[in-house]
Amino acid sequence: MALIVHKYGGTSMGSAERIKNVARRVAKWRAAGHHIIVVPSAMSGETNRLLGLAREISERPDPRELDMIAATGEQVSIGLLAIALKDLGVAARSYTGWQVPIRTDSAYTKARIEAIDATRVNTDLAEGTVVIIAGFQGIDESNNITTLGRGGSDTSAVAVAAAFKAQECLIYTDVDGVYTTDPRIVSEARRLKVISFEEMLELASLGSKVLQIRSVEFAGKYRVPTRVLSSLTDPLMPIDEEFKSGTLITFEEDENMEQAVIAGIAFNRDEGKITLLQVPDRPGVAFQILGPVAEANIDVDMIIQNQSVNGTTDFSFTVHRTELDKTLEVLESKVKSQIGAREIRADAKVAKVSAVGIGMRSHVGIAAQMFETLFDEGINIQMISTSEIKISVIIDDKYLELAVRALHKAFGLDQPD
Amino acid sequence: MALIVHKYGGTSMGSAERIKNVARRVAKWRAAGHHIIVVPSAMSGETNRLLGLAREISERPDPRELDMIAATGEQVSIGLLAIALKDLGVAARSYTGWQVPIRTDSAYTKARIEAIDATRVNTDLAEGTVVIIAGFQGIDESNNITTLGRGGSDTSAVAVAAAFKAQECLIYTDVDGVYTTDPRIVSEARRLKVISFEEMLELASLGSKVLQIRSVEFAGKYRVPTRVLSSLTDPLMPIDEEFKSGTLITFEEDENMEQAVIAGIAFNRDEGKITLLQVPDRPGVAFQILGPVAEANIDVDMIIQNQSVNGTTDFSFTVHRTELDKTLEVLESKVKSQIGAREIRADAKVAKVSAVGIGMRSHVGIAAQMFETLFDEGINIQMISTSEIKISVIIDDKYLELAVRALHKAFGLDQPD
Repeated sequence: MALIVHKYGGTSMGSAERIKNVARRVAKWRAAGHHIIVVPSAMSGETNRLLGLAREISERPDPRELDMIAATGEQVSIGLLAIALKDLGVAARSYTGWQVPIRTDSAYTKARIEAIDATRVNTDLAEGTVVIIAGFQGIDESNNITTLGRGGSDTSAVAVAAAFKAQECLIYTDVDGVYTTDPRIVSEARRLKVISFEEMLELASLGSKVLQIRSVEFAGKYRVPTRVLSSLTDPLMPIDEEFKSGTLITFEEDENMEQAVIAGIAFNRDEGKITLLQVPDRPGVAFQILGPVAEANIDVDMIIQNQSVNGTTDFSFTVHRTELDKTLEVLESKVKSQIGAREIRADAKVAKVSAVGIGMRSHVGIAAQMFETLFDEGINIQMISTSEIKISVIIDDKYLELAVRALHKAFGLDQPD
Repeated sequence: MALIVHKYGGTSMGSAERIKNVARRVAKWRAAGHHIIVVPSAMSGETNRLLGLAREISERPDPRELDMIAATGEQVSIGLLAIALKDLGVAARSYTGWQVPIRTDSAYTKARIEAIDATRVNTDLAEGTVVIIAGFQGIDESNNITTLGRGGSDTSAVAVAAAFKAQECLIYTDVDGVYTTDPRIVSEARRLKVISFEEMLELASLGSKVLQIRSVEFAGKYRVPTRVLSSLTDPLMPIDEEFKSGTLITFEEDENMEQAVIAGIAFNRDEGKITLLQVPDRPGVAFQILGPVAEANIDVDMIIQNQSVNGTTDFSFTVHRTELDKTLEVLESKVKSQIGAREIRADAKVAKVSAVGIGMRSHVGIAAQMFETLFDEGINIQMISTSEIKISVIIDDKYLELAVRALHKAFGLDQPD
C-alpha cells in the first residue's frame, strides 16, 4: 500500500493507443493496492508545435505568454489519461499545476519549483483515486502560469514524489534504463541495475538524455528513490518484475559497494573548441577573454590555459557547437586586438568522452588508465577536465567511437555483473 | 476613452497571419485611446481536434476531463494574441478563465457563468494594458475547469462586457452582420444595421449560427450593446467606420421605430416530423407520448394536436433530425401499444421557415400574409407555431428555397432601407 509516482514521457503518451496502454499499466498498479500519482508529459511533438506557432508570430515571443501556451500540452495529456483510466473503471482525476497548486518562482520558461500543496491531492489519494498531475508547469505567486524548461516533467515527477514522500518515483521512458554507454556505439553495453545519485548527476550534466539534470538534483536533494524504466514493455507484466527492471538511482552507499569503479562512458558531439594563440600571459587575461563571451550569453564548458612560453600562452575553451560562430564573432570584435592575441582558431570537429564512477574516490590511477587506453589507440587528447567522480577529454571527432569502445572494454564494463 | 470588448471567432484566429491581423486591429483601437478587452476563440478546428482525441480513447469521455482538455484551445489563442500584440509594441496580458477568475456552476461542457472578478483585469486596464481573456471557459467553486459549450466564447465576451460595463461588445466573425435571410438562398438579402434583442433571440433559437443563443440571453439580461461585424475587413480601417458597420443588437425601442415589421426570414432543415395517427383523444395522452421522449433526453420543438374526430386525433411533433430514429424506437417500444395509436409515421423531409419581427406586436395580419404567400406558391403548411414576434411553419423540404424567397419579397425585405 505504498505511494508510487509514475512519470510518462512524450513518446509513451504519443497517441490514443499509447495512452490507453499507460492507463492499463497504471490500473494494474492501482489494482495491486498502491496509491498512484501519475505525471505525464505532453504528447510527443506537441510542445514543439505550440512553440512553433508562437515563433511564427514573433521572433522573440514574450516568455510569460510562451509559458501560457506551452503549458497546454500537458493539460491535454492529463485529461486524456484520466479519460482512459475512467474507461477502465479506475477512479482518476487530473490536476493542472495551478490546481494542485505547484508553486514556482517567476522565471518563465525555466521556473524552479518552490512548494507543492498536498491538501487536495491527499484527499483524492485517501479515497483511492489515481491522481494525474500535469508535468512541466506551475504557477508563481501572482498566479501566472510558469514552465520548468525542456524535460521539466521529470523534475515535476521527482518533486511530486518528494512532496508526497513516495516510496519510489518511476520514470517510464522509451529506453529501459541507464547503460554503461550508448548501445548503438558499443554492442556490449549493459544496463545498470543501480547507479548512484552522484553518477547520474554527472551523466545528466554530460548530456545523457535519460533524465533531465534538474530532476536528478531534486532526487538528490530530497533523496527520492528514482527508477528509469521502459514504457514499451507489456503493461500487464507482474509488478515485482517491474520493480526489478530499469535502473534505480540510489542513495544507499551499500548497494554500490560491489559496483564497478566506473559506472559508464558518456560522450557527446555537441561541443566545439576555440583556441586563442599566443595570448599575453598576464593577470586578468582569462577574464578579458571570457567576460565578453559570458555577456553574449554563451555557456562555456571546458577551459584550458597552457603553460606560458616566452610570456605568451595558448588559451582554449569549448562552447556548444551551435554557438561556435557567435563566439568567434565576439572574440574577433571585442577580444582579439584588445588583448593582443595572434590568432583565433575554431574547431567543430571535436568530441567529448567521459568516464564516470564514484569508485574514482577510492581508486587511484583511473585517469592514468584512461589516458593509457587512448594512447594505445593512437588518440591524441586535446583537453582534459576532471571532477571528483568524472574524467572528461576532448578528442578529434573521428576517434569518438573508437575511444568509447576502447574505454568501455578497458574498464571492464562489457563484463556481466 | 471607452471600454470596448472585442470577440474574435475561430476563423479569425485560424493562423499566425490571421492572429497578427487581429493584433493590428486591436492595436488600432488601443491607439485611439480605448481600453480594450479581447476574448478570442480557439483556432478553427482545434476544439474538434481535442475532442476527437478524447473520443479516440473513450466513447463516453468523462465530462470534467473533456473540459480540462477543451479549455486548452482558448489558452493557446490568448497566448498567441498577446505575443502578437507585444510584437507590435502594445502592452498586453492574457488570462485564462481561472486567472480572472470567471466563476461558473459545475455543469461540465455546458456551464453557466455566475460571476466575474474584475480586480486583476481592472489593474491592467488602468495601466493601459490590453487584456486578453480566454473565452469558453471558467472554474467552478472547487476550482475545476469548466467550459460553456459550443459557441461559448460569444457568451464569455458578452458576460465580460456586462461585468466591466463596456460601452459595446464587438463580435468579430466571418460574416459582416445579421441578414434579412441567408444570401446564399436569396441574393437580395440585406444586412440589418440594427436588430432588436428580442428578434436576435428568436433568430438564434431558430438556428441562426451568427450568435450563440446564450450570448444573446446574456446581452439581454444585462442590456449589453452587442455588434456583429466582420474580421475580414482591412484591420486598419477607420474606427468610426467600424462603429457603423455590422449589425447592432439594440435595446432602444426608438431605434427600431422605423424598422420593417419583419426583420428577417429564418429557416432550417435540422428537424424531422413524427406523427401518431388515431390517438385516443383523452386527458393525459400528450404526456403519455412526450414523457418517454423527454426521458430519453430528446428535445421536442413544435407540437400539434389536431381536432378530435370520432374520439381519436392525430398528434405531431418535431425533433432534431438526427434523433428521428431514436424517437421512433422510444415511441414503438414505450408508447404505441400503451396508448393504442394506430400508426406512427416519421418524415425527415421537412423544413422549418420562420418570419421574425417585433413589428408583429403592433401589426395585425402578418400571419395571414405569410399563409397567403405560401398558398400562392402552392406550398402546403404542415405545422404552425407562433410566438409574440415569430411565426414558424413546417413545410415539405423541397419547397424551402421557394418559400424563403417568396416570403422575403412579400414582406418587402428586398427593398433598401
